Amino acid sequence: MSDKQNKLWGGRFSESTDEFVQAFTASVNFDQRMYDQDIRGSIAHATMLAEARVLSNDERDAIINGLNEIHAEIEAGEFQWSVALEDVHMNIEARLTDRIGITGKKLHTGRSRNDQVATDIRLWLRDHIDLIDGELTRLMQGLLGLAEREAATIMPGFTHLQTAQPVTFGHHLLAWFEMLRRDRERLADCRKRVNRMPLGSAALAGTTYPINRERTRELLGFDEVCHNSLDAVSDRDFAIEFCALAALSMTHLSRMSEELVLWTSAQFNFINLPDRFCTGSSIMPQKKNPDVPELVRGKTGRVNGHLISLLTLMKSQPLAYNKDNQEDKEPLFDAVDTLLGSLRAFADMVPALEPNREVMREAARRGFATATDLADYLVRKGIAFRDAHEIVGKAVAFGVAQKKDLSDMSISELRQFSDQIDEDVFEVLTLEGSVSARNHIGGTAPEQVRAAVARAREALSH
Amino acid sequence: MSDKQNKLWGGRFSESTDEFVQAFTASVNFDQRMYDQDIRGSIAHATMLAEARVLSNDERDAIINGLNEIHAEIEAGEFQWSVALEDVHMNIEARLTDRIGITGKKLHTGRSRNDQVATDIRLWLRDHIDLIDGELTRLMQGLLGLAEREAATIMPGFTHLQTAQPVTFGHHLLAWFEMLRRDRERLADCRKRVNRMPLGSAALAGTTYPINRERTRELLGFDEVCHNSLDAVSDRDFAIEFCALAALSMTHLSRMSEELVLWTSAQFNFINLPDRFCTGSSIMPQKKNPDVPELVRGKTGRVNGHLISLLTLMKSQPLAYNKDNQEDKEPLFDAVDTLLGSLRAFADMVPALEPNREVMREAARRGFATATDLADYLVRKGIAFRDAHEIVGKAVAFGVAQKKDLSDMSISELRQFSDQIDEDVFEVLTLEGSVSARNHIGGTAPEQVRAAVARAREALSH
Amino acid sequence: MSDKQNKLWGGRFSESTDEFVQAFTASVNFDQRMYDQDIRGSIAHATMLAEARVLSNDERDAIINGLNEIHAEIEAGEFQWSVALEDVHMNIEARLTDRIGITGKKLHTGRSRNDQVATDIRLWLRDHIDLIDGELTRLMQGLLGLAEREAATIMPGFTHLQTAQPVTFGHHLLAWFEMLRRDRERLADCRKRVNRMPLGSAALAGTTYPINRERTRELLGFDEVCHNSLDAVSDRDFAIEFCALAALSMTHLSRMSEELVLWTSAQFNFINLPDRFCTGSSIMPQKKNPDVPELVRGKTGRVNGHLISLLTLMKSQPLAYNKDNQEDKEPLFDAVDTLLGSLRAFADMVPALEPNREVMREAARRGFATATDLADYLVRKGIAFRDAHEIVGKAVAFGVAQKKDLSDMSISELRQFSDQIDEDVFEVLTLEGSVSARNHIGGTAPEQVRAAVARAREALSH
Amino acid sequence: MSDKQNKLWGGRFSESTDEFVQAFTASVNFDQRMYDQDIRGSIAHATMLAEARVLSNDERDAIINGLNEIHAEIEAGEFQWSVALEDVHMNIEARLTDRIGITGKKLHTGRSRNDQVATDIRLWLRDHIDLIDGELTRLMQGLLGLAEREAATIMPGFTHLQTAQPVTFGHHLLAWFEMLRRDRERLADCRKRVNRMPLGSAALAGTTYPINRERTRELLGFDEVCHNSLDAVSDRDFAIEFCALAALSMTHLSRMSEELVLWTSAQFNFINLPDRFCTGSSIMPQKKNPDVPELVRGKTGRVNGHLISLLTLMKSQPLAYNKDNQEDKEPLFDAVDTLLGSLRAFADMVPALEPNREVMREAARRGFATATDLADYLVRKGIAFRDAHEIVGKAVAFGVAQKKDLSDMSISELRQFSDQIDEDVFEVLTLEGSVSARNHIGGTAPEQVRAAVARAREALSH
Repeated sequence: MSDKQNKLWGGRFSESTDEFVQAFTASVNFDQRMYDQDIRGSIAHATMLAEARVLSNDERDAIINGLNEIHAEIEAGEFQWSVALEDVHMNIEARLTDRIGITGKKLHTGRSRNDQVATDIRLWLRDHIDLIDGELTRLMQGLLGLAEREAATIMPGFTHLQTAQPVTFGHHLLAWFEMLRRDRERLADCRKRVNRMPLGSAALAGTTYPINRERTRELLGFDEVCHNSLDAVSDRDFAIEFCALAALSMTHLSRMSEELVLWTSAQFNFINLPDRFCTGSSIMPQKKNPDVPELVRGKTGRVNGHLISLLTLMKSQPLAYNKDNQEDKEPLFDAVDTLLGSLRAFADMVPALEPNREVMREAARRGFATATDLADYLVRKGIAFRDAHEIVGKAVAFGVAQKKDLSDMSISELRQFSDQIDEDVFEVLTLEGSVSARNHIGGTAPEQVRAAVARAREALSH
Repeated sequence: MSDKQNKLWGGRFSESTDEFVQAFTASVNFDQRMYDQDIRGSIAHATMLAEARVLSNDERDAIINGLNEIHAEIEAGEFQWSVALEDVHMNIEARLTDRIGITGKKLHTGRSRNDQVATDIRLWLRDHIDLIDGELTRLMQGLLGLAEREAATIMPGFTHLQTAQPVTFGHHLLAWFEMLRRDRERLADCRKRVNRMPLGSAALAGTTYPINRERTRELLGFDEVCHNSLDAVSDRDFAIEFCALAALSMTHLSRMSEELVLWTSAQFNFINLPDRFCTGSSIMPQKKNPDVPELVRGKTGRVNGHLISLLTLMKSQPLAYNKDNQEDKEPLFDAVDTLLGSLRAFADMVPALEPNREVMREAARRGFATATDLADYLVRKGIAFRDAHEIVGKAVAFGVAQKKDLSDMSISELRQFSDQIDEDVFEVLTLEGSVSARNHIGGTAPEQVRAAVARAREALSH
Repeated sequence: MSDKQNKLWGGRFSESTDEFVQAFTASVNFDQRMYDQDIRGSIAHATMLAEARVLSNDERDAIINGLNEIHAEIEAGEFQWSVALEDVHMNIEARLTDRIGITGKKLHTGRSRNDQVATDIRLWLRDHIDLIDGELTRLMQGLLGLAEREAATIMPGFTHLQTAQPVTFGHHLLAWFEMLRRDRERLADCRKRVNRMPLGSAALAGTTYPINRERTRELLGFDEVCHNSLDAVSDRDFAIEFCALAALSMTHLSRMSEELVLWTSAQFNFINLPDRFCTGSSIMPQKKNPDVPELVRGKTGRVNGHLISLLTLMKSQPLAYNKDNQEDKEPLFDAVDTLLGSLRAFADMVPALEPNREVMREAARRGFATATDLADYLVRKGIAFRDAHEIVGKAVAFGVAQKKDLSDMSISELRQFSDQIDEDVFEVLTLEGSVSARNHIGGTAPEQVRAAVARAREALSH
Repeated sequence: MSDKQNKLWGGRFSESTDEFVQAFTASVNFDQRMYDQDIRGSIAHATMLAEARVLSNDERDAIINGLNEIHAEIEAGEFQWSVALEDVHMNIEARLTDRIGITGKKLHTGRSRNDQVATDIRLWLRDHIDLIDGELTRLMQGLLGLAEREAATIMPGFTHLQTAQPVTFGHHLLAWFEMLRRDRERLADCRKRVNRMPLGSAALAGTTYPINRERTRELLGFDEVCHNSLDAVSDRDFAIEFCALAALSMTHLSRMSEELVLWTSAQFNFINLPDRFCTGSSIMPQKKNPDVPELVRGKTGRVNGHLISLLTLMKSQPLAYNKDNQEDKEPLFDAVDTLLGSLRAFADMVPALEPNREVMREAARRGFATATDLADYLVRKGIAFRDAHEIVGKAVAFGVAQKKDLSDMSISELRQFSDQIDEDVFEVLTLEGSVSARNHIGGTAPEQVRAAVARAREALSH
């Protein structure tokens, strides 16, 4: 049995907390991670309380000095975290009272752990959103650099993993860029809703002390105060919204990973991944495995899982704060770590990708990739698109049987299918002709790729 | 075996599609729901093609007239949908060719089903986001009306479902309002990303026809065109982002539902729900069940499920379009229907809630709800908060043993715990004193509730 | 407003159900699917009631005849389903009273919709588990046939999608078989828990009528009766357990699908999929897309979603039946349909797969697939495995630089890395040598594959 | 950059692993938890290799002694785990070679990390399934004890959280018992599939060494060997199946938790929870919060999330082992910890629940709980059930208006609704009469509860 006297709330209790219950319900093992935010929040709160004459200036100074010393203790690894003190808040407050005496007990005036923890998490998440935005931007810049360099590199474009039409590698990389661009927009939208301050809501109803929420908000850099105290202590939307965007962003990384795994296979061989991003096998001496993309692909499920954890957590919870909410932190922390680590690994790796341009080009040359160009050619000769499609379909069937690509057929072979086909057809059947002809905004022409890179770089710099 | 000749893509195929495969892979049973969007998109495409001289004006007119007649046929229930024609797009196009002959075959010039379907879904979702916004606003207005009426109605505020502090019912309702306010913000943020046009991306790489994407965009009311063709045909972020916000919004409704179910129980009895929102039992004649909130609570899982379906769907898909993506529609459609129906049911029901004010008040009077007020009172007498907390904790333990609430104790009983307690304590122990004292922004004081309603009403009217 | 008089529970109600609420809360649109089970359950119930003298034999006969006629009406498509009558149970009971008069009202004696619906779903699911088992078995038999035929066909085995070691195609197919074998075990385990009878639990507490649950159980073919009435009406474990196994089974199909999509790509080209399992493109005339595996892969998410829907649904529901539970059916029905359809498509398709044996073999020959064999060879010459691994790693690095596979190197080239290498090394570097050497239970040797097929066929026949 | 020489697979690599990549891809921080299973597996493997003459007896002894010393080092906290050595397997093997020299390098003969890790996880999970079964059984025994004691305690049974019919508290507790009984069945079913041995599959194809899988199986206590090497190294079904049953079991605990939270509220007040299972508030001195059930309820989402993580992880992975699979451990470990801790907390808490029998009884007396009994009474007087239902419904409506329960009405008041009602009606309207009348298997009668306890106790003892 733990010592009942240790608790900051034991007045009405007649027996101590069961020891297993104490360990089972404690959060300090994971919420200590928010010590910096907790201390910053307490300093702002004390500052405001002094301005509101709830604390004297001396009391405020003692509290702030004490907190700063505790901050240093923690960073130095000298702080003794206690499970009996339940959480980061109680641990720090108890230590403060150890250090500065009875004045430490005044810090908690006009607040509750309910609004305190909600404030801490939001500060923590805001800090980490900014770190994520940095890695995301770095990865996007890496993609732009590579896309520019490979603006005219031809590869097969796939649908259904079947060769569809030739595209440029730069264009493909810009498709990745677009996914991340949307992630960044969502991150900014989420940040708006994260950056609102619950502090001042106290346990659930507000407080009777003459607090100045606007002042605390300003000190902590929040955009606005939460409008309703019951909502403020029980709202975890921001964590769910973050996990949702993180799940989507990881889904994007999983798609890129899948392509990297395919492209580094012996069968595709479109890309070399430098050895430093790969590992080997304990049994097969020849193996060089694309571990980073595989692992990132695997980590996708993790964030989907955290999203479901949090949605399940909040389902049908009555107002206001319930103990269930303690379960909000681990999924959120791990979602942040996973996204941040995966983005960092990609931002390091993407600029180091080495395309095998000849292999890509050769792959594009096969598989009747310019069949659509032939159909379009026939349309320009006056045939309705659907009929042109049928004609080319027959030519392809012939090619499959003869193992001959369209551009390898003779003019007389091609004219079996339509007498509208003339010698000029061979121009449209080239890879360069095909990609250059798709020369409108969003199209795969090298010129469009370079213009898109320039626009994206401009947008990213703001 | 179906007739190979029916397919619009059969040229290269040597055998017809297996009949079960045809039914298994067809989407027309669910995607016919987008007929209106499909026709609007085709009309805009034809209009642009004529301006770009790809179609003659006569061809354009024939196509548009034909499409308008098909639209009328569908609305009249006279259209014959064919599974052999796979999807809404092929069905409508085949019917167009039936009606206007070979010109119908020209409509598909410069586009593909890949960009067509992506455009249709976005138009469909945009239309439904606007309907959802309407119901959400109606519910929010209903809440404001009720909150204003009940601004001074006192009820117990709960944390851990234990009586915590007295709050006003109006304040509680405004907590619900805040959840929905965030949902509405997210809906608007999502709409920005929905309202971008894939059309012009063709199969995956753009098209060789001289299309004017900007013109089509303008005709269809999109905010911008998608920047990259590979991304545009394979991106389903918008559906996932919508499902994520819908899941969160349903989670909010589940929390309100839970409270309504609790409040209509015999044990709480805080609320009457009019008979028209309830149903009975086939066996127990006395039953009147709160079906609407229960069902809405149950429907939460449905949208969580759809969110997971879509995230799983997109996980590690290589670019560009894959058949997997056909699975995007049913979850999205059902998420929209679920959210829209649930909001509508709540918007109808909320203004009809009948609070049992006396029961609420009596519940607030019990359970030592003003214990925090007593602690705050002691702090004002100079006792540190943590010590005041301990004193009141002991008084509560005494009250539990004596079955006496704090406000029922005599002054001498109270003074057992601290000699700082005087006669003026009884003012702070009243319910009205307690709620009125929390008079800062976000606090539960009736004055604050009325001010919050006024601000919210103002914000909602923009 | 609907007519209050239509309801079978309207006695205590003073106003009719709101029309939108009626439609929103009705389940008849989807639960009518259980009409057969509902009628079978009612016939068994009536039979038991007559034996227990609660009904006369004439009443029983009238009820059973009436129900059989209603069954015929439904199958003929002549039954008028009414939303005002809420669900399949009320629709059928009301029709029974229409047909046979007041006796129809006696059928519901000693039961409630709560135990009735729980019984219907279990019967429905039991029926469908048996259908699924049939398709699963058919697919497994197809795999065994193909595995036997391809027992000695060599292909590259992959880890990390990098060539690892040669395996036989038959061995690979048996890996698929093993996944399905576990699915079938889980299906049988689930069926045990599905096949328990809630009937007799009435609303939640049992009934005062002298029912004989054991007799009804026997008539309906249940294995046992549910032991506790409160649990029996509120338990939906069986639906969740089924969805969990269905999600896992779909995950297996998604893995096979992924491989089929890879193998039919131009880059792998290991497999031809007959045209009848493929579709084409509306714009690219050359396309032949592996629609069936892609679609099955896409449908995986669907069942994961339903599993989450149901888990979320049941989370923290107090006993006993709540309206939320009405949401159990659609996810379950769709999970069943999805799994059944996907298995059927695979069972049709798998025997028609056409391996390109030469391509597979050539792929296995490249990529240093026999490097492990070389290391094992060195171990047999007395070198510790870890050192042998290092030696072969260096030989591979040399081969990568020289673009030479191990079996293409001369003896003197190989001996650069270890003087323990002799002429006999070339035997272990052949593909046949490599696969045949893995000749233990579970290994890839053709002999083991054939033995495994024989054992599996034997096990499947029981 | 880490030292390339440290790796056990570095032969073919020309540069060292990137330092961040090394940390990002290492698993030793979490997989070290399987050190005991890893060492047991290695000892069995070495024993078998010696019997097969692949190792000499001296080599075997050196290896086994070395491993036992390493085991002791780890348990004493003296082992230095190295991230550069990636995982638990490489760490232990490298340490073995440190200790016993070159012989240590022979341990890995005939196996790969792929089959080694799969074996370790299964051993670890098997061990923990047995621990979970122990806690589950303890909780079930606690429920039986309480149910027996409270076999005749009357409380209201709820449907839709509305008073439905009187039930006994013992009967309600047995509903909980039934949920757990099914969990235990599923746990045993899962254990069968966990307890199969992958070892001998090597990297993916089996090994060329003359291993004896049957012997290793016997040494490690597995039920059988995995039938196919490709499947064995890539199968993670067992982890998914475990998470699915854990999610369902947590869902059951969440339902019990919800009821405990309701019952300890001031409004219900059915139950006292001893102080040692509760905590207080930092601001509200009167609070005593039911932390344990709230937290368990909150932890439900966690396991749902892990289940989704693993399903997403495996979705569409091609054979055989991919790096993604490293992500299998953390969700599994945490699902095990969560379920084990929650069961333990419940097993401790349940026997300490203190029912407020008078409050329960009084609640059952209100709310027209015996209305069904009145309807059944009328049926016994010859009225069809549906008509009896209507009559009682009207009596209830009268009672609601008059604020009078059925048993409080006079005989003349009751006879307003049917002249079939006589003085003997008051017997059926008593609570004891109501519960005792439901006296069939599964019914709520105290006699049935006691019989059910006896049967359950008997079954549990086997």
